[in-house]
Amino acid sequence: MKQPTRQVSTKDSKDNPGSHLKSDIRIDQRKEQSEEEQKLKRNLDKIKHKIAIISGKGGVGKSTVTANLAMAFAMNGDKNKVGVLDADIHGPCIPKMLGLKGRTLIGGPDGLLSPVVGKLGIKVVSMDFLLPNDEAPVIWRGPLKMRAINQFLSDVAWGNLDYLFIDLPPGTGDEPLSIAQLIPDLDGVVIVTMPSEVSEAVVKKAVSFARQIDVPIIGIVENMSGFVCPECGAEVNIFRAGGGKRIAIDKSIPYLGSIPLDPNICSDSDKGLPFIAENKTSPATKIFFEIVRQIENFLQDKKPSERRR
Amino acid sequence: MKQPTRQVSTKDSKDNPGSHLKSDIRIDQRKEQSEEEQKLKRNLDKIKHKIAIISGKGGVGKSTVTANLAMAFAMNGDKNKVGVLDADIHGPCIPKMLGLKGRTLIGGPDGLLSPVVGKLGIKVVSMDFLLPNDEAPVIWRGPLKMRAINQFLSDVAWGNLDYLFIDLPPGTGDEPLSIAQLIPDLDGVVIVTMPSEVSEAVVKKAVSFARQIDVPIIGIVENMSGFVCPECGAEVNIFRAGGGKRIAIDKSIPYLGSIPLDPNICSDSDKGLPFIAENKTSPATKIFFEIVRQIENFLQDKKPSERRR
Repeated sequence: MKQPTRQVSTKDSKDNPGSHLKSDIRIDQRKEQSEEEQKLKRNLDKIKHKIAIISGKGGVGKSTVTANLAMAFAMNGDKNKVGVLDADIHGPCIPKMLGLKGRTLIGGPDGLLSPVVGKLGIKVVSMDFLLPNDEAPVIWRGPLKMRAINQFLSDVAWGNLDYLFIDLPPGTGDEPLSIAQLIPDLDGVVIVTMPSEVSEAVVKKAVSFARQIDVPIIGIVENMSGFVCPECGAEVNIFRAGGGKRIAIDKSIPYLGSIPLDPNICSDSDKGLPFIAENKTSPATKIFFEIVRQIENFLQDKKPSERRR
Repeated sequence: MKQPTRQVSTKDSKDNPGSHLKSDIRIDQRKEQSEEEQKLKRNLDKIKHKIAIISGKGGVGKSTVTANLAMAFAMNGDKNKVGVLDADIHGPCIPKMLGLKGRTLIGGPDGLLSPVVGKLGIKVVSMDFLLPNDEAPVIWRGPLKMRAINQFLSDVAWGNLDYLFIDLPPGTGDEPLSIAQLIPDLDGVVIVTMPSEVSEAVVKKAVSFARQIDVPIIGIVENMSGFVCPECGAEVNIFRAGGGKRIAIDKSIPYLGSIPLDPNICSDSDKGLPFIAENKTSPATKIFFEIVRQIENFLQDKKPSERRR
């Protein structure tokens, strides 16, 4: 059992020191817990909007969407007011996609960690910043992951932000559950899917998950839609088209847009250049800004009474 | 505390019934645990080779590779001797890929569940067979997932198999750790990657993971390599090429092959037809059979002394 940091003395502690010690420890543990909770709340209160990016299935380009959305919001008038929490403990990709590989989290005099600051003042926290190298795996079961995510939220000097985007790993396990529990006023989730039926089936689980844990769904983004051959211009649906839209209609969820499969998105992500910053006039960039507009509308339409807290 | 199924009586139990009850419960719990372990061992002993399919990152086509590998082994002389355990609790895809959607696991008189049997006698167990519908998410933290995987191994009548392929979810968390602990004589892992650097970085974690938990690496498969435009025949690298081979050389791991990006693989998977059974002469099918040959060589070369048990 953890040593209490401070003991509460009660009037008859001399008569029965054993039992009082136990109750003192309990009181102190509760106090510590409540201090932790207050620290978390203080941090979260300074962030206007918290949006999680989820998908039932991996590899649908969730991190690409998160990185480009953060960049789009920062370009759209929120310079220095956007943060990204990479909550994928086992496979953190955000630092690479935002060109921040090799950076580390540094502690400040206030005991809080400073997030790494990227282009347009985007503040980023990721497990990747704590690993000795790219090859080091994080072999952790659920409870340790929950603790790490808690610390990323409460022990980081996020400061005053307009938007915090949280990139969650695939599935409906420990990480998304932890985020939903730790952030009671989460504005909502953006669900990313790709146009294949196998993925569609899994994404429906993500929709049910959000509804079961009572988190608003902002909408669905379909990533990697029709591919245009750069040689002949033929449009080929490598993955079958239209799954995202179908789910959106089927489930009465806003459809935010389809991002076309563009080899530049992949090569830019590999180079750490968010696609939309490098290709300002491309169709995919226009779609990202359209998604920004729809998210802003969602947040404006949301009445305070609909907030979960 | 769980009620013991049977109590061990000792000579002086009358004098101090409380303390004996406690020790009886402890003995019975140990007995139960050891019975569980024996049941697991009995089941696993009847399976000649156990191979897990892993990847650091999701969406690289791990389930597609697993389904087609199982089919390739079954076509290659192991009819009725191949099993697939879908250990992806949150996003089970194997039933859909093997055309077994809507089937359920049925209990037998021996108290064991019967796996669902597909084409060529492939035996399949998946969380999907236990869910009421496609949209039901499994909102479980780690310990529950560990328990489910344990039951899938020990409470299922797998029977005598030559090969059991285990499709693991991405990451290095609860599921792969559970498999490594529950199957001490795991023959090895096949690592699936795709040709993008972001994925490459994450896959290196999978390599380190396998080495840290002391599981042999059979080799790396690169999925979704160069795409050939069906209209003009131009080869386009949608994802950057060569990552899998680079990792294999860099890490001194056998390179098992590159599976080209073929729209038929995706549409066949969606229809529940394993690609190789439907396209027997395609280049991708030839590569799957080449991978089978290499896995067989790996298993033959492995001396008994190298086995972990």
